[in-house]
Amino acid sequence: MGVVKCQLSVSLDGYMAGPEQSEADPLGKGGMALHEWAFKLAAWRDPHDREGGEGDDNPSNGVMEEAQAGTGAVVMGRNMFGPVRGPWGDEDWKGWWGDDPPFHVPTFVLTHHQREPLEMAGGTSFHFVTDGVESAVAQAKEIAGDQDVSVGGGASTVQQCIVAGLLDVLLINQVPILLGGGERLLDNLEAGASSFELARVVEGREAVHLFYAVS
Amino acid sequence: MGVVKCQLSVSLDGYMAGPEQSEADPLGKGGMALHEWAFKLAAWRDPHDREGGEGDDNPSNGVMEEAQAGTGAVVMGRNMFGPVRGPWGDEDWKGWWGDDPPFHVPTFVLTHHQREPLEMAGGTSFHFVTDGVESAVAQAKEIAGDQDVSVGGGASTVQQCIVAGLLDVLLINQVPILLGGGERLLDNLEAGASSFELARVVEGREAVHLFYAVS
Repeated sequence: MGVVKCQLSVSLDGYMAGPEQSEADPLGKGGMALHEWAFKLAAWRDPHDREGGEGDDNPSNGVMEEAQAGTGAVVMGRNMFGPVRGPWGDEDWKGWWGDDPPFHVPTFVLTHHQREPLEMAGGTSFHFVTDGVESAVAQAKEIAGDQDVSVGGGASTVQQCIVAGLLDVLLINQVPILLGGGERLLDNLEAGASSFELARVVEGREAVHLFYAVS
Repeated sequence: MGVVKCQLSVSLDGYMAGPEQSEADPLGKGGMALHEWAFKLAAWRDPHDREGGEGDDNPSNGVMEEAQAGTGAVVMGRNMFGPVRGPWGDEDWKGWWGDDPPFHVPTFVLTHHQREPLEMAGGTSFHFVTDGVESAVAQAKEIAGDQDVSVGGGASTVQQCIVAGLLDVLLINQVPILLGGGERLLDNLEAGASSFELARVVEGREAVHLFYAVS
């Protein structure tokens, strides 16, 4: 059995996206800076079909490799798949990533709009789930088999997984910047909604990686 | 010259106090759990005149020793000194800590009410500063000389120090619990209000200690 895991980049003030998110700026004001540590890594560049990048002399590279390895399916929220504002109920929108998305596995998108699955290049397929996060994770686990299910974003999807007790491992990539507003990862959660245990810390060059076991 | 430093215990969702803070419950609902890792340490128990505790087999003990060492003065906000609700403008209130507070150095309290200094047992004296955080830190630095100035709480005092560029070192003791509400440490800050660099990480038994250099 694999685990249900989630890795997200979070600012020092707890935001996983900046303020004023929009179709033109899906990560919000300043939000791109949360991901710059990753863009530099060979382990990020390779599945995104880009050459070069920092190798294992930056400990973040191993973390990224590990986070991506053994992933048999992905679950993501509607806003990670499509624009925050504006519809994509039509059949034209195929995600932010072009014809060959970087997931390379079946990917379950939470939505209120039924839609036929989309087969993309490179092994990614998008499956639209209208009956909630528990159903999405159950379908993803079944397809993933012995491999892990990776929960993408946004914050609301991760929060729903935590509240429903579906998440096993939370990897917080803490980036030492202030965003000052936006979407907080750990928000709208009740005290004791889940119990966390720090499993491991890796100090990367531009982010510190905190692995929490969730139960 | 010493540095201006601050060490605070923060929940995984970023709170340094729980919801519903009151005179009877100054740390808010669940907030005491943020400090349990510290209460167990010899390095915390000793200055609080309690015996025993965990020694250096818990890496948190060394962090606590280091955070307390070399402190020549303390700055704190009004709510750390007195009840959140209710006045202490009268001369009766002498802080939460009894006759021998655990600071053992001159301690500058931000307030809107002028008041004569209070000499306590054990080397602590309380000085009431009515002209703002920059003045309080300047007075504390002058008295501290070559030693450090430690900024206590609450969140608002720390935020004011960050915004005014007064803080040099921020030690976040991240405790793996959710408080679900309350007072957030890094809140009300603008993007780029300060720049942070992770200087060191220490993995304690019940908290992870993140040392940030602030500039």
